[in-house]
Amino acid sequence: MRRERHRTLKAVSSTIGDLGEFGLIARLTARFPHTDDVILGPGDDAAVVRAPDRRVVATTDMLVEGRHFRRDWSGPRDVGHKAAAQNLADVAAMGARPTALLLGLAAPADLPTRWVEEFGDGLQAECAVAGAAVVGGDTVRSDSLTVSITALGDLRGGRAVRRDGAAPGDVVAVAGDLGLSAAGLALLRAGRAEREDACLAAHRRPAPPYAAGPRAAELGATAMLDVSDGLVQDLGHIAAASAVRVALRRGALRVPPALAEAVGLLNRIGATGRDPVDFMLAGGEDHALAATFPPDVALPAEWTVIGRIDEGEGVALDGAPAEAAGWDHFS
Amino acid sequence: MRRERHRTLKAVSSTIGDLGEFGLIARLTARFPHTDDVILGPGDDAAVVRAPDRRVVATTDMLVEGRHFRRDWSGPRDVGHKAAAQNLADVAAMGARPTALLLGLAAPADLPTRWVEEFGDGLQAECAVAGAAVVGGDTVRSDSLTVSITALGDLRGGRAVRRDGAAPGDVVAVAGDLGLSAAGLALLRAGRAEREDACLAAHRRPAPPYAAGPRAAELGATAMLDVSDGLVQDLGHIAAASAVRVALRRGALRVPPALAEAVGLLNRIGATGRDPVDFMLAGGEDHALAATFPPDVALPAEWTVIGRIDEGEGVALDGAPAEAAGWDHFS
Repeated sequence: MRRERHRTLKAVSSTIGDLGEFGLIARLTARFPHTDDVILGPGDDAAVVRAPDRRVVATTDMLVEGRHFRRDWSGPRDVGHKAAAQNLADVAAMGARPTALLLGLAAPADLPTRWVEEFGDGLQAECAVAGAAVVGGDTVRSDSLTVSITALGDLRGGRAVRRDGAAPGDVVAVAGDLGLSAAGLALLRAGRAEREDACLAAHRRPAPPYAAGPRAAELGATAMLDVSDGLVQDLGHIAAASAVRVALRRGALRVPPALAEAVGLLNRIGATGRDPVDFMLAGGEDHALAATFPPDVALPAEWTVIGRIDEGEGVALDGAPAEAAGWDHFS
Repeated sequence: MRRERHRTLKAVSSTIGDLGEFGLIARLTARFPHTDDVILGPGDDAAVVRAPDRRVVATTDMLVEGRHFRRDWSGPRDVGHKAAAQNLADVAAMGARPTALLLGLAAPADLPTRWVEEFGDGLQAECAVAGAAVVGGDTVRSDSLTVSITALGDLRGGRAVRRDGAAPGDVVAVAGDLGLSAAGLALLRAGRAEREDACLAAHRRPAPPYAAGPRAAELGATAMLDVSDGLVQDLGHIAAASAVRVALRRGALRVPPALAEAVGLLNRIGATGRDPVDFMLAGGEDHALAATFPPDVALPAEWTVIGRIDEGEGVALDGAPAEAAGWDHFS
């Protein structure tokens, strides 16, 4: 019995340095089942993935420990989920169906093997939600922990929904959560990580509405992006690219109960003096989708109309430039 | 005149921290012209790239400063060339034509803007050699400098040449340089960086024979990979995946004059006691292509036959296991 425990402890304490590169790759690839889109998975010079549309959507993002995640605030599965989600959301925001993901992992030799295994499990679980497969990658040694993800997608014969197609008269709508991740981060910063509420969960594992992206393209979305830096800032990219004004209505932003509760707690403990709507306007990382549609489109329930497109420039809130709303230096 | 000089100095000394993320992205994307394969380039949630074959080849690699390059040994253009080359070679080694490249750059705020600009120029120049375009990327702040590259390619209706198709009777051939990069690295380690010879140049900017990859697929190559870790080690992957023995002939490895000269110098200064052929057998990073072909294929001059495929396992050199040849712990 004692020996058994000792062996367990040894297994738990093994590092990727002990395991070596090929052992690490074997541990990871064993976690990544193929889908119908995978013609050739990990293990050769490159992967081969179906691209039935004859166009492939591709995006890449890096996550650096200490900047994009903290190992004391997020578990390895959380980091895997989040790394996959932020890239898969970019694919969905073009109106594409995510097909494949490639992983670059630069990690110190003393990183526990178990961390990488659970990170891989989180990555795979998020890919499964979006319908994508992990098809390849690279692992290298580094003093710091850095994750690089590339996601691919297929447009299924549809248009790529860019940022430059919004026109005056269009409605502005969002699908997915706003503000929850930012409130979760504020809870962590305030030392309230023990509260297992929806905002903390959203910060650790954002849940982008992947399927809403391709559906928005079919509905005729004129512009779309995923909200990663904050709603007002990101809508500013649509305003600039489309040469229009995004006019938001504060009253249209329905505050989720979990956000109201979290911000209430933060205000009671003096950690912030903000309104929940400020979190929805300025918080990023929920990876909601924001899109514009022609005014006559009947939007399904997954979209909430929050404003309209006018002639002009920039983002306005209830008629005033959103920059003047007091949220701009908030992060 | 003095003011002019002052301004120049200020420009030279600017860092990416001064420039900010959007400024940095603008500096980089201005360097990356589109090709016919680019449907949508940088600036949206994701890029859109032609995939005429309905399959896309995808590979990713990370380069960490201090492990994969040193800023005192390689200039920024060199690092850009090398980062692109090692990924584009992986695409070519599948028999595909490289189409697109995505860049992830994690960098400290005090990295000179000029370094990133010249790095981008090198990346673009190497992409131009291979016919690919830089279509997107991500820049993030980090304490250390890490480059992540993803390359995409198109199979043009042909087979993906994997590692598992070599059969007894096939010939083994290489296209491109062997050993030059390793000798260049040995010169740098010996403090002979002032010698501007072909080995140093090959170490800083490998020149993979991109076009030979798709041509090998057309010629009927049964297995192929790019030589990145060393010829014997990499051919070991073909031996294992194909369940065959790779039988090399030492006499078939023609030593390039530049390699003979560099190794002669290294031996004179006591920095190594190696034969030039050892560098060809064990040196990686030239990103030559190694492939197997049916014995009746008439190979063009870009391919040099260096052995054949036998029944058995592992890699042999003149009949003895290559592991016994004395090079195995050499790097």
